Formats: sequence, C-alpha cells, structure tokens
Amino acid sequence: MTQTRGEFALIRRFFQRPTKRSPLGVGDDCALLAPRPGMQLAVSSDMLLQDRHFFPDVAPQLLGHKALAVNLSDLAACGAKPLAFTLAIAMPKASAAWCQAFSKGLFALADAHDCELIGGDTIQGPLSICITVFGEVPQGQALLRSQAQVGDDIWVSGHLGDARLALEALLRQHVLPARVLSQARQRLEQPTPRVELGQALRGIANSAIDLSDGLMGDLGHILVASRVGACLELQVTRSLLKAAQHPQMRMLATSRVDICTLSGGDDYELCFTAAPSQRAAVLQAAQSCATPVSRIGQIEAEPGLRLRSPEGDLLQPPRWVSSFNHFS
Amino acid sequence: MTQTRGEFALIRRFFQRPTKRSPLGVGDDCALLAPRPGMQLAVSSDMLLQDRHFFPDVAPQLLGHKALAVNLSDLAACGAKPLAFTLAIAMPKASAAWCQAFSKGLFALADAHDCELIGGDTIQGPLSICITVFGEVPQGQALLRSQAQVGDDIWVSGHLGDARLALEALLRQHVLPARVLSQARQRLEQPTPRVELGQALRGIANSAIDLSDGLMGDLGHILVASRVGACLELQVTRSLLKAAQHPQMRMLATSRVDICTLSGGDDYELCFTAAPSQRAAVLQAAQSCATPVSRIGQIEAEPGLRLRSPEGDLLQPPRWVSSFNHFS
Repeated sequence: MTQTRGEFALIRRFFQRPTKRSPLGVGDDCALLAPRPGMQLAVSSDMLLQDRHFFPDVAPQLLGHKALAVNLSDLAACGAKPLAFTLAIAMPKASAAWCQAFSKGLFALADAHDCELIGGDTIQGPLSICITVFGEVPQGQALLRSQAQVGDDIWVSGHLGDARLALEALLRQHVLPARVLSQARQRLEQPTPRVELGQALRGIANSAIDLSDGLMGDLGHILVASRVGACLELQVTRSLLKAAQHPQMRMLATSRVDICTLSGGDDYELCFTAAPSQRAAVLQAAQSCATPVSRIGQIEAEPGLRLRSPEGDLLQPPRWVSSFNHFS
Repeated sequence: MTQTRGEFALIRRFFQRPTKRSPLGVGDDCALLAPRPGMQLAVSSDMLLQDRHFFPDVAPQLLGHKALAVNLSDLAACGAKPLAFTLAIAMPKASAAWCQAFSKGLFALADAHDCELIGGDTIQGPLSICITVFGEVPQGQALLRSQAQVGDDIWVSGHLGDARLALEALLRQHVLPARVLSQARQRLEQPTPRVELGQALRGIANSAIDLSDGLMGDLGHILVASRVGACLELQVTRSLLKAAQHPQMRMLATSRVDICTLSGGDDYELCFTAAPSQRAAVLQAAQSCATPVSRIGQIEAEPGLRLRSPEGDLLQPPRWVSSFNHFS
C-alpha cells in the first residue's frame, strides 16, 4: 500500500480519516484489524469496472455508494456486522472534484454502517474500483449457501427487477414514465444493502445469498451448494417488481415482468431459506429492521428449479432465465 | 463475490482449492477468517494494471507470482505472518491456458508462504489484478513507519536497483549483457518478498517499510511518519546494485548506479531502522533467514534526506531522486 506524493495529497484530503476501532488505518504498509474474541472475520472482495458495471457518466457520488454497497451486501448475505474496508482504485487522472464526490457517497454509506476505511491503493488507469470489506460474525453463525433444507420456505427481501428495468431504459431498449424511471434508477445506482436483515436472520435462516446476478441464477447457487431443488410461485415473484405497480405501467407485458424479477440482476436484496416453523421469526426479524420480505417458494428434494404458474401448472424456467454471465 | 456459470468453471478448475486453515474459502458470499487469540490481522491491498505495472506480453506465470509478491511484501514490512488472500481479477477473455499459467505462479508463491486463497471476483475487462492479503501479528508488535528514532541505523535487505535497470533495458533505453539482463529481469518479474525477515525483525527494528517506489521516496515516508531526517552513505548504496558488480558492467556511470539504487522502484526489499545496540541482533535475524542486509545510513533529528559522498561531503538529493509518482 505504498503511496507517493501526488496520490498522498489526494488520499489525505479525501480518503484518510482517523479510525475509531481499527488499531491502524490508512498510511502504513498494512492496516491492522483486531476482531473481538469469539468472532470470525467475514471477508468479501468485488471489483467494479467502467462500461461493465457502471456508465462512464454515472455521478461519482452514486458510484462511491454503489461500490461499497455491493460489498456490504455480501456481508449481509452471511449475517456479518460491517467493520472496515480497503479501497483500491484506478482512475485516469487525479481529479479533486471527482474524489470529493466519490468519497462523499462512499463515506455516507460507510458511516451509516459504522464501517471504516483502513487502507488501499490509488493508481492511474482506466476507472476501476476494488473494495475488500470485513465484517464480524460470531463463530459458527455465518449464513451459508450450503445449508438450505428440503421443505424450507424461500424468501426474498424488498422488491426485485427495478434495477434491470432502469438499465434497459438507460440503454434505450424501452421508455419509462419519468417518475418510474427515477425510482427504478435509484435502485440501480443506489442499492440498499440489507445489512441489518442479514444479522437479524442469524439463527433463523438456514441459507442465504445476495441477489447481484438475478434471482434464478443466485438461488441456483444455493440449490447447487445445498444439493436440493426449488419451486417458485410465479404469482408472487410477479408482484415483486415495484415499477409494475405504478398506474402508468399497468400495460407492462408479463414476460417483461418475469425477465426483470427472475433474472434482473443488480437488486442487492437477500434471498434466504428458513424452515416453515420460523415464519413468525422471519417476519419479526424483517419488521425489526423495517425491511419487507416475501415468501416466494419452497425448497424441494428434486434437483433443479421449477416455476408454478398462477394456474397451478409446473413450468421449467425459460431460456432467458439464465443469470448474467460475466463471460457471455 | 457472486459468480456465474462461465466463470465458475474457470474458478473451480484453477482457483478453487480446499482451505486448510480458514473456516470458509472460495465459493460463498464471504470467506471466513479466524485469527488466533492475541493476534491482530494485518491487511494490505494492491492493484496491478497492464501497461502500468506490467508489460502486455509478460508470462502469466510470472504475473501470478508478482501480483501476490507485492502484497506479501507489505505483510513483511509490518512483520506479519501470511495467512490468506482474496483475488479480484479482470481479464479480457476467459482463457484456460492463461488461468492455468497465472494460477501456477500464484499458488507456487502462496504455498511457499502457507498463504491460502479464500475468495475473490472474476470479471471481464482490461487485465487488472487486485489482491488483498491477510497476515497475523502478535498484538502491538507490528512494525510501523512511524517509530524510527534519532540515532537509528538505516538498513536495507538484499540488493537495490536491478529491477529498474531491467525495466530500462526492456524499454530499450540501454542494452545490457544477456546474463546481466536475465538476472536483473528476474528481480523485476519475480521479486522475493522478505516475509521471513520481516517477522524476524519484530522486537528488533523500530520502523520498517517495503521498497516498491524507490529507496529515497519510501524511506521518505518513514521520515515523515516518524518526524525525523536521515543521512545515507553513497558509498554503501552504490554497492547495492548487483548488476554493477558484473565484469561487463564495470563501465556503468555512477549517476546511473545512483538512479537505480536510490530511486529505482520495484525492489520489494525491506528498509528498516534499528538502534545501533541492535546491530548484532539485526545481523543474526538476517542470517536466520539467509537474507543479506546492509547498513546504509543513520536517522537524524534534522528533517530531510541527505547523502554523504564517498569523500565525506554532504549532498542534497538531486532532482531525479523523486520517487515514482503514479500521477506524474
């Protein structure tokens, strides 16, 4: 993490802040973390690239928010409490205005979760951001993908698909009413990581994952890791696209709703499974952190993922329900 | 750390290995680390970009080595024992041959230091690599930049400047004899992080830093953080360029030797300070890990960095002795 003069001025000005909890923060070869006794450290690392994960003209303040949000979402999915993060960032030039706006969005979210910046790297290059985030979770209590049980309810938090709908509108694949676009775009550019819900679900949920690449693909990871299958209720998943509830959106094709909710991507909601006996506990956990949750289906012994139509027919997921593939 | 299918195949094949020590490795939303009681976790994050940190035609096996080596070097500088790392990598296409070679170089070094891959991210984009490395250090024993004391000896490990000499030859700024180039190029492309020396210096050295951006710039960070100055013996620093000792290199200009040794960059040696009373202990620590060390100067109360010529004159560092500036 050695830095040089030009960078140092920037880092001191925008990114270097005293750490409250970590023994050593930005400015040495390493940062130091001291997890509390009995705690395991949860670690996640994500890289965001311009043109791949965000538009070149995205407001830097929103990008600062999102870069941390997608990592906090991984902590949420394992039920960890955020502690700290490192930030490695490549930028084409050292722009004070850009750094100021980026750091404003970054730290607003970091402060909201008491998650402190402890180190990183700043280099010249095409804009890319790599954040590694650290959280703590009591030993043995992390929520895993591999512990879904046959008979579990499948739940998701919040709404699904609005980010995809906004992305398609920004790519001019369709036109949305201004108010709908504005709300959906906020879901795309300023996702809310479900950090409190993840922690509240420890000891209640059997498995969890965060929805970054689309419900069916990400739920698929739980199914593979847990060696089980699932059936989803289409009637419920279709109700998860918030934009579709807007009066001006009533004509939205069902197929479009299904594409957005089932394979949208960029939702950063939690998908988790819990025994039916835990329904009241799940609802109470969700209420305690003011996060809506919906029960969308069931874990089954038969491998694979099925959809139950509103008419009660069992359907195989159509071909478009393949999760976002980074190498497609 | 959510991955999708195309990537998964790659990751499973080349990057996913069982973890021996960490409770949870690659393949969930987070990895889990369990530091031992009384230990602090040292964390460092570095990003390497093509054209900025390595040539497009560098052998992927060497790149795998170097990407981890520069991070292990940060752990070395704080005296930490490597534990684990995350790897976020963007690559233009999913090439099995490239991943195989890259992972071979990466894991050879990782295994040598018992440092396990616990998670990461794989995306499509211009080649860039972000590694975050974790090590453990007994509480309060980390070597810091800020603890150099007036009167301390200044030491460096190994040789300095060969990486710079190789870089200049590869950029066709000069021609080196084949054998000299081969040795110097290895220093550039396969640096040896001084992990054992860093740990051996705990309780002996007062301050330490790893040399990534050039001796004078990096030593400058110690001086600023410790609010002290220093004087270096040019006679000694000039002896640190190993290539200059080759018979065919006897005509190398002194100014070239000084540029390489004083501001070369990419050395990944340790620079550290210790009280003169610790000289025997330093030498014994160095011997215990078969790493040569040289005493190159002294910490002084007067701020700034001075050079003492072989004739005993005090010189101010020339203008070219400014450390590599990422935003220059």
